[in-house]
Amino acid sequence: MSSSNVVLSGVFSPVLTPFSGDLQPHIPRFLEHCKSLLAHDVGLAVFGTNSEASSMGVSEKRRLLDALLENGLPPLRMMPGTSACSIPESIEMTRHAVVSGCAAVLMLPPFYYKGVGDEGLFRYFASVIEGVADERLRLYLYHIPPVSQVGISHALIERLLHAFPGTVAGIKDSGGDWSNTESLIRHFQPAGFQVFAGTETILLDTMKAGGAGCITATANVNAADIVSLYRSWRNADAEDRQARINRRRAAFQAYPLISAMKAAIAWETGVPEWGTVRPPLVELTAQQSRQLRLELEKLEPAAPQAMPG
Amino acid sequence: MSSSNVVLSGVFSPVLTPFSGDLQPHIPRFLEHCKSLLAHDVGLAVFGTNSEASSMGVSEKRRLLDALLENGLPPLRMMPGTSACSIPESIEMTRHAVVSGCAAVLMLPPFYYKGVGDEGLFRYFASVIEGVADERLRLYLYHIPPVSQVGISHALIERLLHAFPGTVAGIKDSGGDWSNTESLIRHFQPAGFQVFAGTETILLDTMKAGGAGCITATANVNAADIVSLYRSWRNADAEDRQARINRRRAAFQAYPLISAMKAAIAWETGVPEWGTVRPPLVELTAQQSRQLRLELEKLEPAAPQAMPG
Repeated sequence: MSSSNVVLSGVFSPVLTPFSGDLQPHIPRFLEHCKSLLAHDVGLAVFGTNSEASSMGVSEKRRLLDALLENGLPPLRMMPGTSACSIPESIEMTRHAVVSGCAAVLMLPPFYYKGVGDEGLFRYFASVIEGVADERLRLYLYHIPPVSQVGISHALIERLLHAFPGTVAGIKDSGGDWSNTESLIRHFQPAGFQVFAGTETILLDTMKAGGAGCITATANVNAADIVSLYRSWRNADAEDRQARINRRRAAFQAYPLISAMKAAIAWETGVPEWGTVRPPLVELTAQQSRQLRLELEKLEPAAPQAMPG
Repeated sequence: MSSSNVVLSGVFSPVLTPFSGDLQPHIPRFLEHCKSLLAHDVGLAVFGTNSEASSMGVSEKRRLLDALLENGLPPLRMMPGTSACSIPESIEMTRHAVVSGCAAVLMLPPFYYKGVGDEGLFRYFASVIEGVADERLRLYLYHIPPVSQVGISHALIERLLHAFPGTVAGIKDSGGDWSNTESLIRHFQPAGFQVFAGTETILLDTMKAGGAGCITATANVNAADIVSLYRSWRNADAEDRQARINRRRAAFQAYPLISAMKAAIAWETGVPEWGTVRPPLVELTAQQSRQLRLELEKLEPAAPQAMPG
């Protein structure tokens, strides 16, 4: 099956990247965590915002992706983030993902210059697509203006779809504005452009509106409940389950999210090093970690989740 | 003379990077432009914001720096930008600059994650300094929150100076807030921490306050007048000359600045390809270029400037 036949949907996670105490990627823990997510039917959006992708170099990300493939993890369940502010580095990482057989890639706009227009963003994506020059490429756009400060407009999507039909395949909307997600679904999903919510807190709304699913950080720590809601969102108890999921998300999000999720995996696995983040992020303090744990224990139990070793 | 003895001051320029029509760095034009700036006594802050540094990969920047050195340009007049969002790539580029004998490097904070605190930024800079592990390193901090959205606080500077005395050497303040520049000069310049204005429009104020000079984009197109003001800022006509310089800057800044400066060099040199920018930036339209030229011609003539070939 060639990747060109894959239409992605469901739940994906920007996979947390475990680091050792000296800040190097810890490949065995990365493999275990990815396997755990796959066991829950969560796809691997490795190298996303919550993976600390921007804190890793191109060669480190290539090595991590290679480790997954060498260990037999399925590339058709992978949507690595491959963007860089520079076109050459974005082409390098994207080509590597495509040649490796990844189902798709997820790409931010270049995010250093602010206030750039759609013309420049179109040229950026076009240059990457033409530079990769591989018809297997399936590109998902990544709209996250609260972080990147540079967004993806409807007009830009239309222009890219017109220029690169079949290649520009969908979007992750992490803009935090449901009206934009809904509008993306209404305008583009019917033609097969897959619209993923950027958080599970709007998963039910996204499914009701006809969207493709969600690509969400907290699938790292609450995979089973989120996937369950995705699978049975038409059930009568869906609203209740969405609310339960949202309470768990809110508990994590009261802290710096990446550090909070890593702290939770650290205590669940008994591996304190899991709490390590690369600068400029900072790990939770011991007190914050204890407090988060207490707050999570006050919530309804999450569905059991195998934690990585 | 070891770089550890160099205290930088005067006028530096984030050197515009010429690209060919197919968006590759044009090394001969880059060399010519750098030589022209040096002839005006403008130091080379290559790979800055106005150099489109973020639109180039690490290997491209290394190659451009190598080309300068192989052609005999003096590393003691260079302050390359070496930052990356990731620590490993920042170490790679910084080490290359130090080993090449560059007088200093200029470093942005990591700029993807927003709202990070001084603790994380301190750890980032500390990790780079300790990773480079070369006592010749002289690091200038780059404060440009209008673009990077992540700034350099006084408290962070104090902490870095305490931890790495002699290494943390100064700052470029492109924040657009004179009160911050003045405060930096008052607090840090007396101890030899060199404070550069990020624009020549406050050069006279900076010199009066005791600052080190300016690192400014428009030195690419108005070097002679800016350097002249730097050299004789105590002269009676300094205010008039500052005003004249500011009118020229304002004419350029009415357009996207990088594209406008490249358009001007394109018509001055008769090399239209000089107008090329990498996406996500967009070159001036022919009409914008004509309009800018007319507006510049209405101003008092600038001091003669040898333009690159």
